[in-house]
Amino acid sequence: MKKLNIAIIGLGNIGCYLYKYLNENKKILTEKNNCLPYVKYVSARNKKKKRNIKIKESQWLNNYLDSTKIKDVDLIVELIGGSEGPAKKLVFNALKNKKHVVTANKALIAKYGDQLAQIAEKNKVNLEFEASVCGGVPIIRSLKESLIANKISKIYGILNGTSNYILSSMDKKNKNFEEVLLIAKKLGYAETNPSADLNGDDVSAKLKILSSLCFNSFLSDNIYVEGIREIDATDIKNANKLGYKIKLLGFAELLNNNIYQRVHPTLIKKDSYVASIDGVLNAVIIDGKPVGQSIIQGEGAGPSATTSALVSDISSILRGNVKFPFSLSNKERKKLKFNSIEERLFSAYLRFEVIDKPGVLSNITSIFSKNKVSIKRLVQNPDKNKKISSIIIVTHESKNKFLNKILKEVAKKNFIKKKPKLIRIDSN
Amino acid sequence: MKKLNIAIIGLGNIGCYLYKYLNENKKILTEKNNCLPYVKYVSARNKKKKRNIKIKESQWLNNYLDSTKIKDVDLIVELIGGSEGPAKKLVFNALKNKKHVVTANKALIAKYGDQLAQIAEKNKVNLEFEASVCGGVPIIRSLKESLIANKISKIYGILNGTSNYILSSMDKKNKNFEEVLLIAKKLGYAETNPSADLNGDDVSAKLKILSSLCFNSFLSDNIYVEGIREIDATDIKNANKLGYKIKLLGFAELLNNNIYQRVHPTLIKKDSYVASIDGVLNAVIIDGKPVGQSIIQGEGAGPSATTSALVSDISSILRGNVKFPFSLSNKERKKLKFNSIEERLFSAYLRFEVIDKPGVLSNITSIFSKNKVSIKRLVQNPDKNKKISSIIIVTHESKNKFLNKILKEVAKKNFIKKKPKLIRIDSN
Repeated sequence: MKKLNIAIIGLGNIGCYLYKYLNENKKILTEKNNCLPYVKYVSARNKKKKRNIKIKESQWLNNYLDSTKIKDVDLIVELIGGSEGPAKKLVFNALKNKKHVVTANKALIAKYGDQLAQIAEKNKVNLEFEASVCGGVPIIRSLKESLIANKISKIYGILNGTSNYILSSMDKKNKNFEEVLLIAKKLGYAETNPSADLNGDDVSAKLKILSSLCFNSFLSDNIYVEGIREIDATDIKNANKLGYKIKLLGFAELLNNNIYQRVHPTLIKKDSYVASIDGVLNAVIIDGKPVGQSIIQGEGAGPSATTSALVSDISSILRGNVKFPFSLSNKERKKLKFNSIEERLFSAYLRFEVIDKPGVLSNITSIFSKNKVSIKRLVQNPDKNKKISSIIIVTHESKNKFLNKILKEVAKKNFIKKKPKLIRIDSN
Repeated sequence: MKKLNIAIIGLGNIGCYLYKYLNENKKILTEKNNCLPYVKYVSARNKKKKRNIKIKESQWLNNYLDSTKIKDVDLIVELIGGSEGPAKKLVFNALKNKKHVVTANKALIAKYGDQLAQIAEKNKVNLEFEASVCGGVPIIRSLKESLIANKISKIYGILNGTSNYILSSMDKKNKNFEEVLLIAKKLGYAETNPSADLNGDDVSAKLKILSSLCFNSFLSDNIYVEGIREIDATDIKNANKLGYKIKLLGFAELLNNNIYQRVHPTLIKKDSYVASIDGVLNAVIIDGKPVGQSIIQGEGAGPSATTSALVSDISSILRGNVKFPFSLSNKERKKLKFNSIEERLFSAYLRFEVIDKPGVLSNITSIFSKNKVSIKRLVQNPDKNKKISSIIIVTHESKNKFLNKILKEVAKKNFIKKKPKLIRIDSN
């Protein structure tokens, strides 16, 4: 029986789960892949930390980088995390020394994926990163293998469970951002420092990887990113009244030979599929030719879902299913044009909190007309006691730059009580 | 550059689409798989039929079975259809002669899959059948590769677009079965002879294949199958009032070491994901460990979606991704116990059209209590003019055999105006 020696580097929750899984499922994985996955070595920053797994002394490496040098390591599973430092050093060295690499590290792949893929290709080893995007949702393998026949025009969806949990809880429980964030932290749905989840950076890294796979292009940093910190209960209530839900969505799309990558809170029709996805789930929608529209939904994070993804990558290597990390050889990948969204058309929701006095409304609407943005719907909610008013405007499709210009111009007016808001609407 | 010679046998809509696709996308497929897919030969029952593709005279085989004998054929795509006759002969001979086979033939795989897999394994060639189940929904590859780590406890969903189109149209347009079937035929959503789609046989074949893959067992014919012909507009209206939609679902589940395979119309909660799938779409839900619940949704049929599936199989072979057809070696596949559903618990909707006279209701309910089936909800809709009444009963969970016994007993009563109905309820 063939055998592949594995080193797991990083023994946090995911590393421990994977270690245990591989030990307990050796037999069935060997039967399915005709090759034994043997966990020969491990390494972790803190060897003495209490873990729920049994590791023999002989399995511990003196130094995590030894895994890249030792002859009897075939495959390294990188679970350190972060785009720089030890994770970067490990993966670069591993590939240079002709070890297969399986990683859950989206930051690393989004930043150095092109360079890493080049080394992997040169040395004919696999670089697999299913676990780096949406945990249990097998979107990478679907794009690279199941949907290989397709020319993808658009991929979008809910790529971050934490922010989706927060937005859907704010909606269902009618609570504020800060209250819900506290609950999310208690339930383990948000990390102690949830910045990357809330400011859109997590989705951004995932989306860069996906769009590169969809459009056969190199990775691009030309991406618009906006998080959910400024969404409040009032926006969610307003959205509901207008027939929408607010979701943090990532989009990568090919329009007239330009690629747009964008991550932002989005108003999406209540009765759409995406609006129905609540809690920590992830969901990805793919428009492809000839297949039509495909949807994949599942658990986006956590040790168990991530292990499912890691094991699918490991199995692919066990079977000798050699692939280019980004579907195509380095020399065939394209340098496509990634555009800023400024010229892209959006319909949008704008909200202005103003002092309720004569002339304000006409002042605002004149700024819209000056910028040639036409108004589809306008709702004014005055609060007679406080002498303030909330003006909600839904626009027809207009260039992003004009919408932003309006936002800036109105913000300067002295009748404005609070920073104005703009949330883009998904017109599908 | 490596090259694989392909013979496409069967040139209906799907065969023609695939032929054209492979010719037009040779370059990108070669780049992605490091091997050229070259359509060397074709064969079809009627060579002279008008087709929208250009075939050179030298590509035509004299006899379709030549493809299994000629040396310069590596891969045969079987698009003849049917579990017997030419399709069976072709695939058996192809595998015996060490040709890879890609097929869209669910009837053949559901019936002879075990034997065929054994030959493929012995001869170390691939037998791939992604296109045989749910066209553009890559459920086979997901089970065999993306979700390889998982112990599946249940798979279910909408596996037939025709019947789903009919049921959702009856619901939305408030029309009868026969009216909607006529429209479906006009739109090309139902075949001239739609029996296999409407009586559940199509779902049955797909489900047998899926449950074999999910539970690592041989194929089993122990399956309960019931179609949608008896569902009428009244049932759909009643279901709506009770908070349900009616869908034709296929289920394969592992309960206490017994596998149940069943296909039947099902009442499913209105706000569930499955209830929201309208039209010809297919959707599959998988409960697995460690991944949790996964959903895959897409186009279930048609030349374009099917070609997407066929090309994913062809690509897998181009890359030399050798796999056992049913995930496991023949000697490792299990003979699991497949149970009849008679002992399984169901909550159910029963409908009795009766003569409206004293004693009828107590007569019916006494039959329920005699069979120890407890009633959760009872609605009586009398039609005073016609002196008839419609009695709808929703039961608590009871063994299927007791529900059936009630149905039979009540059917015999002389106050019954119409064949009584039983539709199982999905309790998730």
